Amino acid sequence: MMGRATALIAGRGALPAHLARALAASGVPFVIAQVEGFEMENPDRLPVETFALERLALLFDLLHERGVSRVVLAGAVTRPRLDPERIDPRTALLLPRILPMLGQGDDAALRAVVALIEEEGVEVVGAGAIAPDLLPAPGVLTEAQPGAADARDAVRAAEIVAALGAADLGQGAVVAQGLCLAVETLPGTDAMLAWVADVAGACRPDPKGARGVFFKAPKPGQDRRVDLPAIGPATVEAAARAGLAGIVIEAGGVLVLDRAETVARADALGLFLWVRPPCGSS
Amino acid sequence: MMGRATALIAGRGALPAHLARALAASGVPFVIAQVEGFEMENPDRLPVETFALERLALLFDLLHERGVSRVVLAGAVTRPRLDPERIDPRTALLLPRILPMLGQGDDAALRAVVALIEEEGVEVVGAGAIAPDLLPAPGVLTEAQPGAADARDAVRAAEIVAALGAADLGQGAVVAQGLCLAVETLPGTDAMLAWVADVAGACRPDPKGARGVFFKAPKPGQDRRVDLPAIGPATVEAAARAGLAGIVIEAGGVLVLDRAETVARADALGLFLWVRPPCGSS
Repeated sequence: MMGRATALIAGRGALPAHLARALAASGVPFVIAQVEGFEMENPDRLPVETFALERLALLFDLLHERGVSRVVLAGAVTRPRLDPERIDPRTALLLPRILPMLGQGDDAALRAVVALIEEEGVEVVGAGAIAPDLLPAPGVLTEAQPGAADARDAVRAAEIVAALGAADLGQGAVVAQGLCLAVETLPGTDAMLAWVADVAGACRPDPKGARGVFFKAPKPGQDRRVDLPAIGPATVEAAARAGLAGIVIEAGGVLVLDRAETVARADALGLFLWVRPPCGSS
Repeated sequence: MMGRATALIAGRGALPAHLARALAASGVPFVIAQVEGFEMENPDRLPVETFALERLALLFDLLHERGVSRVVLAGAVTRPRLDPERIDPRTALLLPRILPMLGQGDDAALRAVVALIEEEGVEVVGAGAIAPDLLPAPGVLTEAQPGAADARDAVRAAEIVAALGAADLGQGAVVAQGLCLAVETLPGTDAMLAWVADVAGACRPDPKGARGVFFKAPKPGQDRRVDLPAIGPATVEAAARAGLAGIVIEAGGVLVLDRAETVARADALGLFLWVRPPCGSS
């Protein structure tokens, strides 16, 4: 199935450039279609097409022109706003399918877009299909290993994130000594970990007890082809500043960007990075 | 049923003194039994008995000596630690009932304590039974009224708090323009609202849009006789600093301390205080 012309529909962040490198390395012809207003990080200065959400129909034209039969969505397109005056007539016909989903959380809106692309006869695949090394197999990737208290904190955090997911909320939580120090909300992972460093960390009942874990997982029932959560070297540094013992991610559900550098930073800082199977310990 | 000798089992915070005033005003004979290490605020310098959790059996002796037939639990006793050397033999016999519950969240531990008290033939009542004015009837208590966007934010926040409750987690959340800015965790309401003021508030998508609400409710299935969440004048001031439009509490499930002063502060600051029925709008 490799070799098929691929379109990378790109939003904000570092993930699109990672996938573009993987596509280039595999020799697959590809085009990058970037969402206007949500420009990707583009350190390699790759050529990109930019399309406006108000002119989504033009994206489909681009896919057909380039003979694209496979699409991967990557990067953040959070709560876009539409300018009614810019909406072209063909896109206007699509909006009744998408607009009702916008108020129902990011997942619902993305599912609607994926469905529209698939109706064009184009397959939607996940980042893992393009760059499998972004999704590490279960195991502990670092020299530091989680202990029994860390494993208990991971179980508690997984339970909390699953409950949050039922409300289409965040994908991360910090638990130490069985207690929830923080939950990821709109400001995101970095803001949450900074708050643990500055404020919440002082609430650990036993200052000499387990330092706690940052746990990240996709929402339950999330379409794993789109919008998987991701961590990277900066996440490791933020977790270290928060005084945590390590990071736990759900295997198959969280992307690790710059894996070598992420693991090296964790080893240098003494944190563990545990890729944990969804159902329990590895 | 009034007039029965009552014991006020008191933990940290302002609630025990409020209830003591209500008991004194009603002429009911009562004793205050304070948990060692979790001393109540005692502005009226009322006489208190202090008991150690390691000697819980002595509390039951006190209840029987004073002819107590009714107990109200008030104030916070969060994650107590036990000194094994101080545990007396009779209390040791009770511990197998309580210890397994300590790791399962505050609710489970409190339910175990309530069950033990009831086995002594003593009724456990809620704060609302002692001081009904702590639990306002549904309605908007302030001059400011919630608008349609505020009502939508309240619905979303109620949904989030219900989902959190399923994981025996916090009782509060801040939602603005449909988006979750913050969720209450171990550091508590004040820390969460300070974070909204300093960090998360800047994430509101539309700076001129709805400013958002702080919503508070008991956990689903929570025993409403113990550990109801509470707000007061300081909550109003923290919500104002966070730039919120108002506070929404679940009717019958959240105590309002110093109601007159709380409403006066809200009116002075232009916030609404909405006592909302659990199932929808009032």
